[in-house]
Order: sequence, then structure tokens, then C-alpha cells
Amino acid sequence: MTQLEAAKKGIITEEMKYVAREEEISVEELAELIKTGKVIIPKNINHQDCKPTGIGKKLKTKVNTNLGTSSDLVDSEEELEKLRVALEVKTDTVMDLSTGGNLDEIRKTIIGNCPVPLGTVPIYQAAIESKRKGVPVVEMDPDYLFEVIEKHGKDGVDFITVHCGVTQETWGRLEREGRELGVVSRGGAFLIAWMRYNKQENPLFEQYDRLLEIALKYDMTLSLGDGIRPGCLADATDRGQIQELIIIGELVKRAQEAGVQVMVEGPGHVPINQIKTNIELEKYLCNEAPFYVLGPVVTDIAPGYDHIVSAIGGALAASYGADFLCYVTPAEHLCLPTVEHVRDGVIAARIAAHAADIAKGIKSSWEWDLEMARARKALDWEKQIQLAIDPAKAREYREQRPPQEEDVCTMCGEYCAIKMLR
Amino acid sequence: MTQLEAAKKGIITEEMKYVAREEEISVEELAELIKTGKVIIPKNINHQDCKPTGIGKKLKTKVNTNLGTSSDLVDSEEELEKLRVALEVKTDTVMDLSTGGNLDEIRKTIIGNCPVPLGTVPIYQAAIESKRKGVPVVEMDPDYLFEVIEKHGKDGVDFITVHCGVTQETWGRLEREGRELGVVSRGGAFLIAWMRYNKQENPLFEQYDRLLEIALKYDMTLSLGDGIRPGCLADATDRGQIQELIIIGELVKRAQEAGVQVMVEGPGHVPINQIKTNIELEKYLCNEAPFYVLGPVVTDIAPGYDHIVSAIGGALAASYGADFLCYVTPAEHLCLPTVEHVRDGVIAARIAAHAADIAKGIKSSWEWDLEMARARKALDWEKQIQLAIDPAKAREYREQRPPQEEDVCTMCGEYCAIKMLR
Repeated sequence: MTQLEAAKKGIITEEMKYVAREEEISVEELAELIKTGKVIIPKNINHQDCKPTGIGKKLKTKVNTNLGTSSDLVDSEEELEKLRVALEVKTDTVMDLSTGGNLDEIRKTIIGNCPVPLGTVPIYQAAIESKRKGVPVVEMDPDYLFEVIEKHGKDGVDFITVHCGVTQETWGRLEREGRELGVVSRGGAFLIAWMRYNKQENPLFEQYDRLLEIALKYDMTLSLGDGIRPGCLADATDRGQIQELIIIGELVKRAQEAGVQVMVEGPGHVPINQIKTNIELEKYLCNEAPFYVLGPVVTDIAPGYDHIVSAIGGALAASYGADFLCYVTPAEHLCLPTVEHVRDGVIAARIAAHAADIAKGIKSSWEWDLEMARARKALDWEKQIQLAIDPAKAREYREQRPPQEEDVCTMCGEYCAIKMLR
Repeated sequence: MTQLEAAKKGIITEEMKYVAREEEISVEELAELIKTGKVIIPKNINHQDCKPTGIGKKLKTKVNTNLGTSSDLVDSEEELEKLRVALEVKTDTVMDLSTGGNLDEIRKTIIGNCPVPLGTVPIYQAAIESKRKGVPVVEMDPDYLFEVIEKHGKDGVDFITVHCGVTQETWGRLEREGRELGVVSRGGAFLIAWMRYNKQENPLFEQYDRLLEIALKYDMTLSLGDGIRPGCLADATDRGQIQELIIIGELVKRAQEAGVQVMVEGPGHVPINQIKTNIELEKYLCNEAPFYVLGPVVTDIAPGYDHIVSAIGGALAASYGADFLCYVTPAEHLCLPTVEHVRDGVIAARIAAHAADIAKGIKSSWEWDLEMARARKALDWEKQIQLAIDPAKAREYREQRPPQEEDVCTMCGEYCAIKMLR
């Protein structure tokens, strides 16, 4: 039974109890939110020792870390180190997006070391392994894609990105409008190339019931991917993007009716003044299903700093109601991230999520800031460091330039305002 | 004649012409905005070779860099290096906040090397030099403060922070309400200590006309400081803060009537959901005088990352109409920043300002992003690097992990979505 089916039957699961405690919300209210599809607990029945994590309305904003090999860089040790660091700085979930090396082996190793929900994008593996067997992506057998999805379910993957909304209708709208940068989603690009070559509908849309069946069996949450997400500000909120969102809204309903947990993925590159509309549209069109956004990236011109760019967009998106932020690292648009980039990306996204949670009125988030304010008032530096989102970094900076008097810092020294007015 | 007096008389100055060209706005419209106090061009008649810089309505959002020694760390070479780096990464203005060493000498050296508008906070020097002469801050002679202000004007300082709104009325309101963290502005703290000890009104308020006379003589812009700015989220937008803003609104009007250019300083620590109100209030209460915000810092718990925290707040504030962002470095709340911290702080603030300018509808800002989108579409990596806000950093990341094929990057390798759909 999935968490959604349980909620529909009025059953309170252990996972619901755990999440309710974590989120300081009554389990009855939580069960109602799950029942109506506004909250999910992505947890595959085969993922052992996975922390139950709630995503959605009235809960703390969650942060996802992408990792995985690429065709150019295959170093599974480095990816495991990224996993370790991401967990150390408290990512809520992880996605294995590997596209290089032995994909089954890498995924299984990551799942075995991942105590938080794990996501994948099965079409990567299906397309890449087809190609390795000498079958071009455009000639890939759709049945093979479903086999891979089944395998991910069996292995314990908690949520999968499936670009079911990339249909002939969506693609037609996009083509008629025209775009500066076209399609930047890899899954979306695989599917569009396949659809164009075969002059057929997207198999993930056409055989959606088959997908639901697999998802139901493992309580594997569907993350309906935005294959048409804008890759630059100029393409944001265009007719293609919103057409896909409308179709996703219909698919959300079908998933929920089938008892399958589901969330919606969102953009992408979006100017600050369009973020509110994007969040509200998802909420209206998809019946408040949890919204999982990538960024948003609020300017195209800052490669090397896209963790900051996305912290701006993510904080704003979450304050308007986005539930789940996919981190972006400083390496975005330039290269596969290093371990250090992963650390910086997770912390930036957590700052964005936390700042938004204060705006959302999450009590425990507010209390954390209040404790810090009181430690500052008390000039209690040890407490300030302990309360910092990254205590090691805060300590390093303070010790790098130690003050002459222990109760102040080298910024203001003896002219510390707080000390002066005591 | 100040820029404001010129505008009132219908005179178009060389500075107005320069700013109009830079901002792609007609000089007539600009002159009208200056005349009505909505735009300033802070430029002391004694600051040689200073780039005319417009701040305010309809113009690009500007970024300020704070630098200067502290009582604990006096290394004027390091401060000059900070100045060099801040200019290299294109700060629009600089403030010398030195509180350690020979303050006159440091200020003069910085002005001599500063081709952009320079600001100071004269009360620092007045209080510190009084103290050095054995006179406690609370016994400081107000005349000495005005002497220092006069000296800064003579030396060519383009704008000064003066906490004129910290009055007995403001302080009374703050006391009656109570605060978690009290006063965190150093200038505010000096004045309040002085006012409490002497049971007298703030001399910068009481002798405001004297201040206006000095400012008028040098066309030194007044930056009306927010001595009561909140130092933690829990203190944001309280009655003390807004009382000060009301008084500042009255002082803005008096300055403008006297022909003195003026802007308003704003918070500080503000939760995301209070930023819009803060910006709108300033615009309403101060007749749309340019608004210069510090951050805003949208969470208290991220020392070590306050440049990111402030990029979130700054982007949001500027998108709602703030005109001028004071950068915050990663060292904020921990120590005096290093040169590297200054670089990171300026770039983070510039990203925030630029992302907001897109939302504000600034044409040249939008075009920059469009050019980057087109370079991405063309897989033209050299162009992407040249267009990046920090080309050196973008190049470093890309070269750190070079791709096997020159036209992609190591994130997606051969599965680059843009390449696939060509």
C-alpha cells in the first residue's frame, strides 16, 4: 500500500507519524494533506533505512542534491564522497543522475549508502544503454524504458523523474512559438528526438497507466519532469512551458486517483518578476501537488555563481509556495561539480529554503533565528558558531582574524554597538 | 551649485549628460527625476576624476563596497588592495568606514585612488578621535562632529551617512517597545549613548540646518542613516524603526528644499515577507528619495554566507524599488573582511542588482542575458566566458574539468540537450 492509499483509507502509517513529529504538525492534519495530494512521503518499500521525509504544503521546504557521473567524468569514488558531504551538510534528498560508467552498479552503491530519499531519471539509463548496444536513442524500444523503470523500482528508488508532459501537443506549441534556446532538459531532448524521428506520441504519456502500475507496486513517487523548462530568461513562461504544465496537471490527477504519490517539477531560468506567477500557476493547475523547482535561475550571466543566482530564485519561489528546491552548484553551466561545489550548492539551497520557511511561518525556523539573535545579544560567540548553518566555516572565519577582546569581533572591535549600549 | 539646484533651475550639467548616456535615458527625464529628488548624482565638487553615477528611480541598481580599517586590524595596504579589487569587479561606489589608524590619512589616500563616488560616516572619526584625546564618546563636543563633517566635505567625500533620525522620540518608541537585539548601528549607538548621557537631543537632528549648509557647499550628498535598523529578524519593521523613517521623511524634504541631494538608508535584518512593505514604506514616507539598503539580511543563521543571504534580500528589495545595495561579505558578523571576501561580496551584490534590474525592466540588463542565451545556443564557450559576470572564474571552472569534445561541457558530455536537438 502506498502512503497515499493508506491516507485514503484512513490508515496512519509509521512514516506519517515520523514526519508529523519532525514537522511539528498533527498526524491527522498531515494524513489529510497526503490524502488530498498536497503532501508526499517519497519512500520506496525496497529502500531500507530511509528517513521518512515529507514534501509539500505546511511542511519545511526541502532541498535536493544532484550527483552522478557523466560520460566525460566517471569516478564513482568521487560521487560517493559527494554523497557523504551532501548528507553532512543536511541535504533532504539525493538524485543520482549518472550518465557514465556502470549505471546499475553506481545506482545500487548510492542507494546502499543513502539514508534519505533517492531519485533518478530512468530515461538517461535507457537511452545511454540503448546507444551502447548500437541502437541510436531515436530508435530506442519504449519497452526497454519501462524495463529500466521497473528495475529502479525494484532497487528501491524513491522517486523518478518522468517527462510525461512532453507530448506532440506540447512540442507543437513550442515549435509554433519559437525559442531562443529551445529545450535544455536532457530527458526532454531524448524524448523529443525520439518523437520526431518516430512520428509517435511520447511513450511515457501514451503508456502512463503502465507507469502508474510500476510506481504503485513500489510506492515509487512520480516526479513529473518539465522537459520544456526554459533554459534562459527570454524563454520563461512561454506557451510551450505552460502547455506542458496543463498536461502535467491532468496526469497528477490520474496518478492520485490510482493511489500513486506524485509531485511536479518546475523551472528553470525565470526572471524574478515571473516567479510568483509560475508558482501560483502550478498550484492552481495541479491541485496544489508538491512543486519541485530547479533554481529558479534568475539571471543567465553568472556562471561560476549559479548557487547564489539560484538561492535568490529558490528563496523567492519557496516563499510563494514551492515545496522542494533542487540545488544548483557554482559549476552549473560550466562542468560537472566537484565535492566542494556540492557542499556550496547544498548550503546555498538550504539558506534559501530556510529564509523562505520564515516567510512561510514555520515556527521552528523562526525560533532558530531568534536563538541566534539572543546569542548575538549575549556576545556568546561559541553559541553563535554552534547555531550557524555551517559551524566549521563560521569558526574558521572568526579564528582567521581573532579580535583583541574575546567578546567582540574584528569588524567593529572596541566600537561594537551591542557592547557600547550595555 | 549642487546637481539638485541645477536641475531646479533647468540647467543640464555635464554630470547629467554623462549619467543619461550611461543609463540610456533622456537627459530631460533624468533632470526631472533629479529635480524631484528621485535621483541623485553624488559627486563632491572637490572629488577629482570621479565618475558621475546616478542613483534612483528608472536607473540601474547600484552596488556599494564598504572597506576600511578597524581598531583591531589596521593595514592600509590591505584596504587599498580591497579598493583595487572592488573596482576591478565593478563596484559603483565605495565607503571608507575606517575606525583604526590615522583616519585622515587613510581617507585621503582612498579618495585619491577612488574614481567612483566615495562615502564615509563622519561620526566614527569624531567619536574615535575624541576618545583618543581622552574624551569619552558620551562627552564628545558636537562642534567637533561638525568640524569632521566639514573636513570630509573639503576632502571630496561624495556622500556621508548621518544618523539624523535617531531622536529622543525615536529612542523613546524603541524603549517602550523593547527589542531582542537593540541597536546594531555603530553610528546609532554612539548617538544614543551621547543622548542618554547628556539628556539632550541628537545634534545632527537639532543642528540639521548647519549640516545642510556644509553639504550644500560641497554638493556632498546626505545619506540619512538608519541608526535604528533591526539587527535580527525578530526586531524588523517595529515601531522604533518606522518612527525613525517618518522623521527621515521630514528631513528628506528639508534637504531637498535647501538644494541638498539626499538619499535614505534602510535595513538590515528583514524576513523575506516584510521586504516589500519596507521598500514601499520608504517610497511613500520619503517622497521616493533613493533608497540605499544594507542587505537586507533575510536570515540570522548563516554567518560565513551572509553575501548569499544578502543577495537574496537585495535582489528582492531592488526588484520592489530599492535603488542602491550595500554589499555584505561572507565575513559579516564574524570578522573584518579579507580581500577575497570583498571580491565575493561585490559579485554577489552585483548579481542581486542585475537580477532585479531585469525585473525592473532595464533594457540593457535584459539584453546582456539574451546575449548569453544566444552564446549558449551556439555552444560558443569563449563568448559565454566573456559574457560572464566573472570571466576569470568561469574560465577556471571550465578548464578545471575540460570536456572531451570542445563544444560541450563535462556536466552532460555527449548527452548535451542543445547539441542533441540540433
